[in-house]
Formats: sequence, C-alpha cells, structure tokens
Amino acid sequence: MLKMNAEDLIAFLRSHFPSVDKSGLAVEQVDEHSITMRLPYHEDHLRPGGTISGPSQMMLCDTAMYLMTLAQIGPVALAVTTNLNINFLRKPKPADMIAQGKMLKLGSRLAVGEVTLFSEGDDRPVAHATLTYSIPPEKERG
Amino acid sequence: MLKMNAEDLIAFLRSHFPSVDKSGLAVEQVDEHSITMRLPYHEDHLRPGGTISGPSQMMLCDTAMYLMTLAQIGPVALAVTTNLNINFLRKPKPADMIAQGKMLKLGSRLAVGEVTLFSEGDDRPVAHATLTYSIPPEKERG
Amino acid sequence: MLKMNAEDLIAFLRSHFPSVDKSGLAVEQVDEHSITMRLPYHEDHLRPGGTISGPSQMMLCDTAMYLMTLAQIGPVALAVTTNLNINFLRKPKPADMIAQGKMLKLGSRLAVGEVTLFSEGDDRPVAHATLTYSIPPEKERG
Amino acid sequence: MLKMNAEDLIAFLRSHFPSVDKSGLAVEQVDEHSITMRLPYHEDHLRPGGTISGPSQMMLCDTAMYLMTLAQIGPVALAVTTNLNINFLRKPKPADMIAQGKMLKLGSRLAVGEVTLFSEGDDRPVAHATLTYSIPPEKERG
Repeated sequence: MLKMNAEDLIAFLRSHFPSVDKSGLAVEQVDEHSITMRLPYHEDHLRPGGTISGPSQMMLCDTAMYLMTLAQIGPVALAVTTNLNINFLRKPKPADMIAQGKMLKLGSRLAVGEVTLFSEGDDRPVAHATLTYSIPPEKERG
Repeated sequence: MLKMNAEDLIAFLRSHFPSVDKSGLAVEQVDEHSITMRLPYHEDHLRPGGTISGPSQMMLCDTAMYLMTLAQIGPVALAVTTNLNINFLRKPKPADMIAQGKMLKLGSRLAVGEVTLFSEGDDRPVAHATLTYSIPPEKERG
Repeated sequence: MLKMNAEDLIAFLRSHFPSVDKSGLAVEQVDEHSITMRLPYHEDHLRPGGTISGPSQMMLCDTAMYLMTLAQIGPVALAVTTNLNINFLRKPKPADMIAQGKMLKLGSRLAVGEVTLFSEGDDRPVAHATLTYSIPPEKERG
Repeated sequence: MLKMNAEDLIAFLRSHFPSVDKSGLAVEQVDEHSITMRLPYHEDHLRPGGTISGPSQMMLCDTAMYLMTLAQIGPVALAVTTNLNINFLRKPKPADMIAQGKMLKLGSRLAVGEVTLFSEGDDRPVAHATLTYSIPPEKERG
C-alpha cells in the first residue's frame, strides 16, 4: 500500500537535502499510520547547556511528518509545511533522539500528524509537535 | 496516588460549573497519565450542518486537560489554560463524543497534555488538541 | 471590494447562529485586511473568579476570523476552522471585550489570520489567537 | 529601561552561538515592546525550490523572541522556549529576511510574543509565529 518504504524515503531525502547524509538520520519503521526515525547523537546539534537544540528538534519533527506523508502519496517534493506547533517538554539527554510520528488525517489537500520526540532510553517525551502539510493538487505534482 | 478520582472530578466540576450537570458530561476513566471523558449527544451543541460545534469541541478538550491535571494536583481551582492548539480533522458524527487525554508533562509550574476527540463508534480522530495549564505556586493555592 | 459589510455579516451570523442575537455581539469595523468586534459584558460568560471564560474567548476569536474571511469571499457557510492556536495572557476585566482581527493570508484554499482580544479600556492584550480556515472550492459553495 | 541594547544582544548571541557570526544576523531595532532583526540572504538557507528553508525561518523567529526577552530581563542564558506555533504563509523571496517581533506579555514566569517574517521589499508576511519562553526564577539565574 505504501508508495515509498524506509529505504526510498532516505534516498529521496539524501538526494534533495545533501546535509542529511552527514547527520546519519535514519527511518527505522514506516507504515500507513506511523513512522519512527532516529537522529544519531552529534555534538553539532548542541546548544549552550549541552542539549540538542530546539531548531534541531523542530527540523526532526518536520522531517518525520514530511516522510510519513510522502510514504503514502509518493515523492511529491512540493508538499509544504503550513503549520507547526511544538511544545518543548524536557531537556534532551546527550543521546540519540527518537521521533515517533502518527498520522491524524491524510486528506486530499491537507495532512495532519503529530510527532513525539524521545531521548533514547527514556520514555518521557522531550518534545511534542503537531504539523500540517499542504498537498499540491494531483495535476501540479512534478 | 491520584488526589481525585473520577467521582471527585465530576463533583468538583458540577459545583464550579453548574451547566455541566445538564450536559451529562462524564469521566469514564482517569489515572496518572490519562483520562477518558464522554460528552453525550445533544442537539444544543450543533452548528449549521448538524455537527457538534467547534467551541463545544474546544471546551471538551479544555475540560479533559483540566480534570486530568486536577486528578494529580488536587482541587486547585486557579489552574488556568495558557495555551491551546487544536486541529479540527473531520466532521463529527451525530453521536456521543469521546475525549482521550494523555499527560505529556506535569511539572511544578506547567502541565502539558494532548487530547484527541472521537465520535463514538469511529476510530478516526475528529480533533486533536495540545494544551498547557499554568499551575499556581503551592503557597497561593486556595 | 468587500462582498459583505458589517451589517451583512451580523445578519448572516444571526440567521445561522440564533444565540448571537442574545449576546449583543457586534461588528464595529471591517475592511480588506482587518475586523473589529465587540462582545458586550454579560454575567453568563463568567467562570469562577469572575472573568470571561476561555471558551467564550475562543468563540469570539473564531467568529472574528470567520467574519473577516466571509467579508472577502461572501456568505460561504461551509468555510471551516482547521487550526486554532490561542495564548491566554491576562485575566480579562468585567468589561466589554474587543476583538481585533488581522488577515495574514487569504489564499484560494486557506485563510490565515490573527485575532487579539482586549478588555475595553485596557491596551494590554487578554488573549492572542492565530487561526486557519479551509475554504471550499468555488464549485462546492452553496 | 532596557537591560541590553541591540549591540549587547548580538554580542551575547555571538558568544553563545558562534555560528551566528557567519550568518550576518543583525538586530536593527529593539525597545520595551518590539524588536526588528535581519537575516542576510545566503544560499545556505535554501531548500529545494530556491527559498529560505522552514527551519531557518523557525530559528529566526525563535532568536527574535529570545533577544526581545533578554533585552528586558538581561543575559539569562537559561530562558527556554516552551511553545512555538508557526504558520508558513508564502514562499519567501531570494532576499534578506526581516523579522518583526512584538511582546504580548512579559510575566515573571512566562514571556509570550509574536514574530512576523517578511522578505525585504514585500509587505506581505512570509510566516507568523507565536512563542512562549519560560523564565527561570530570579534565584536560579546564572
């Protein structure tokens, strides 16, 4: 049923966003309703205080939602975020960050989902985001 | 561990918000991490088109988060919503509405949670909200 | 340029939401980019503590965004809120509430705006909301 | 009245986030209620399609809110974002990006503000964010 699997998604991401290669970002699982991604721990993502920065967390949420959507609609580069709401809950640990995405609605014009971030080995969420992607009409897709 | 159980919560709500009695709002389950509430179907909540109105949905999310917080901190009437973000996903059906709340973080100053709304008998979410409550310092509680 | 003026908007609201009549809700100004509404002070909107309730504030923000959109696209009853994010900033005073709306983007599929609430006579905002409305395609409008 | 002026703010940012130096980020104006920042156009911020990326826009909103808060409370490195809600409105142009921040509430525990982004030379907003910062209690500040 999926139009792109984990391997397809990462290949797509690497070809469109070359910096991804360096970060080691991985798709661990994807299905019709959910995705799990992992961002390996790197000192580059740190902010003062030694934790993974807010912008890195936002980017991870955005990427998880993007790939969860593409898995179902195919490689539509023009899908764009229209709304992102994120609550930062706890200081992340110096560890890999795990993103768990869940699709709330995949309509013909809008996809809405939520992404929860965890530090590996800790089941208390670090951040929680809800995101909306606008999906271009079929005829305008490249 | 809970400072208030389902019965306490509804009694508290009724004594502070008398209109609740009339609505038939019920707490079906509550524990340290979650709450389930039910809003019986009434024609009063309808908007043009025959569905439960957005404001009724927002009020239900807000109430679920409020009671989920009170269950853990006790009857602190002064806890107040500071942020509510809601995505309306699907037209609700003319049926009871079920609210499933999940606590994301209960700190000493802020409680953050999410609430998903369903029409009874349909597992596709109608709306999803994240909410933040500000908790008054211990010494200021009535 | 406007398809509906202040008088048209209130007439539309009254015919679709009869309870509006009772509340005394008024459109004080509307143009291509903004709207000003007034909710007269009534004891009914109060919550414990004597202030206008959160749900009343959310409903006012939602109505201001709805009417600001209709003013430009005409009486499209099927326009629906897809996202509402509100920050509650200060306890409102027992006074009329003023809503100032500003359109951020009016596209063919989505309208995005912000609404700031004030208690009359105080220039510090009581609440601030951003809202997205989904606009039905031209052919599906009633 | 301000505890830090534009020069202080940029110096603080550079000493805590060395990458800022490279980006050319500037504070053009700051007072008790507002801030204006400029992000010079660089090809690095681009995403496929040639526009400034969403993460770059989010980081700019977050930085503007952070500095607008520090201007009033002083160099409190431990102030942290607790909530960010952003609506992406239009494709930015390949031009400098201007951020206009406005403080909605500066309390003792929370600061809430909004930031609107523009492409230089175009008065239609590119993105709009509301943000909440948590302010550490006086005694815990470094």
